[in-house]
Amino acid sequence: MDSYSLPHEIRQLCKDGSFTSPTPGLALGFVQANLVVLPYSLAFEFLLFCQRNPKPCPVLDVTDVGSPEPKIISPGADIRTDLPRYRVFRYGELVEETTDITPFWRNDLVAFLIGCSFSFENAMLNIGLPVRHIEEQKNVPMYKTDIECMPTGAFSSPLVVSMRPLRFNHVVRAVEVTSQYYKAHGSPIHIGNPETIGIKNLEKPDYGDAVKLYDDEIPVFWACGVTTQTAILRAKPELAITHSPGHMFVSDLRDDLLMF
Amino acid sequence: MDSYSLPHEIRQLCKDGSFTSPTPGLALGFVQANLVVLPYSLAFEFLLFCQRNPKPCPVLDVTDVGSPEPKIISPGADIRTDLPRYRVFRYGELVEETTDITPFWRNDLVAFLIGCSFSFENAMLNIGLPVRHIEEQKNVPMYKTDIECMPTGAFSSPLVVSMRPLRFNHVVRAVEVTSQYYKAHGSPIHIGNPETIGIKNLEKPDYGDAVKLYDDEIPVFWACGVTTQTAILRAKPELAITHSPGHMFVSDLRDDLLMF
Repeated sequence: MDSYSLPHEIRQLCKDGSFTSPTPGLALGFVQANLVVLPYSLAFEFLLFCQRNPKPCPVLDVTDVGSPEPKIISPGADIRTDLPRYRVFRYGELVEETTDITPFWRNDLVAFLIGCSFSFENAMLNIGLPVRHIEEQKNVPMYKTDIECMPTGAFSSPLVVSMRPLRFNHVVRAVEVTSQYYKAHGSPIHIGNPETIGIKNLEKPDYGDAVKLYDDEIPVFWACGVTTQTAILRAKPELAITHSPGHMFVSDLRDDLLMF
Repeated sequence: MDSYSLPHEIRQLCKDGSFTSPTPGLALGFVQANLVVLPYSLAFEFLLFCQRNPKPCPVLDVTDVGSPEPKIISPGADIRTDLPRYRVFRYGELVEETTDITPFWRNDLVAFLIGCSFSFENAMLNIGLPVRHIEEQKNVPMYKTDIECMPTGAFSSPLVVSMRPLRFNHVVRAVEVTSQYYKAHGSPIHIGNPETIGIKNLEKPDYGDAVKLYDDEIPVFWACGVTTQTAILRAKPELAITHSPGHMFVSDLRDDLLMF
């Protein structure tokens, strides 16, 4: 498995149980997606939460009730088996990590596939903008902010952001290129001062790894799909299933289609 | 009431019952929206239908269950009284046209506000592109196509389109400017040959009025919000309420915010 692997090859190895690793860097150019599975009773509230908070929660596909097929972004795929690793939550508590959620499937479940920052990171790299955590071979640093998402029914969450340091002369181009990928978190939500959005210490991210910020650089913050996971922890549904962090659904959709 | 009226002034006159006319041309620069009200039992399917068909059905706001306040696009407004005219449907049949839907309101209803082409028409006019039905003081011509929207539960519909004739040297600019307004139907869905999308006779629109197409012009087609109404007629919900054609909700949102 490498950057040249095709999405359906990766999904087949996940299905066979022979690939259970993180997906960053695989199948470059194809959209990877966050997964959230919820009972139908919460599906409207969750879809509306995403609709109201499109920067952290850009919806790419929603399966029909009871169907595990994301027929818009990957016809024929099965989200129960085609990701490398999943987390199962009951009433907001992590109860199991697994590589196959078929045993948990029910005919009232709905799966949501949500855009991810890998798509716009590729776009940044393609125009020569460095992405620090990729250079340092780390997970992107992520932080809870003091910005509240617009709540919807049971779902509420602080906006979680990812941070990428950029040289001052790269910032405008980074805004321009990422704003085009509005189904992959789009433009930054903040540039410059972490404290303005409630982040006290860049060296202590809430998720992921800290990265180096050089003197001629400024921190740039984008909305992050982890926001959906904090919303689920607060809502405490009787059942929720997500991908394990970094173990995304690799779809057949081309990154550049997220601009349209 | 004219193009300089402010949205809240128009809504107040609707509430008082003293304004019951169509809204095109009023409060120029502010977003006007289609209204669809449905019971909560159909809300997920309808929201997902819109999510899957964003060009005809760009969702701008969805009220909380039982609330008549579109708190994102017009905090404090009341969709039960603030539009000039409504249509009430039971099981897909028009049963009443009214200027106040308060008597029909229930605590399980959800209101959807959906983007409308007036926003991108203003943008076209602002860069010097003519809009024929405005020149001719007519309603825009609209046609059912043979393109099926992606169905969702009870909701399905042919894609309904609006048509604007343009000179050949205006077509590219029209694509460029309207594509920016992706929450107001965005770029065209077809340029050139009506028969390719199942339209037999441009002079006989399914809704609205025919307009003149000159020899040096080509017909350009955009997805149209009337698609939501045909979807409701097919779904036959026990109750549905919409605005009357042309009698839109005039919101506090600026047109240009539909680009972000």
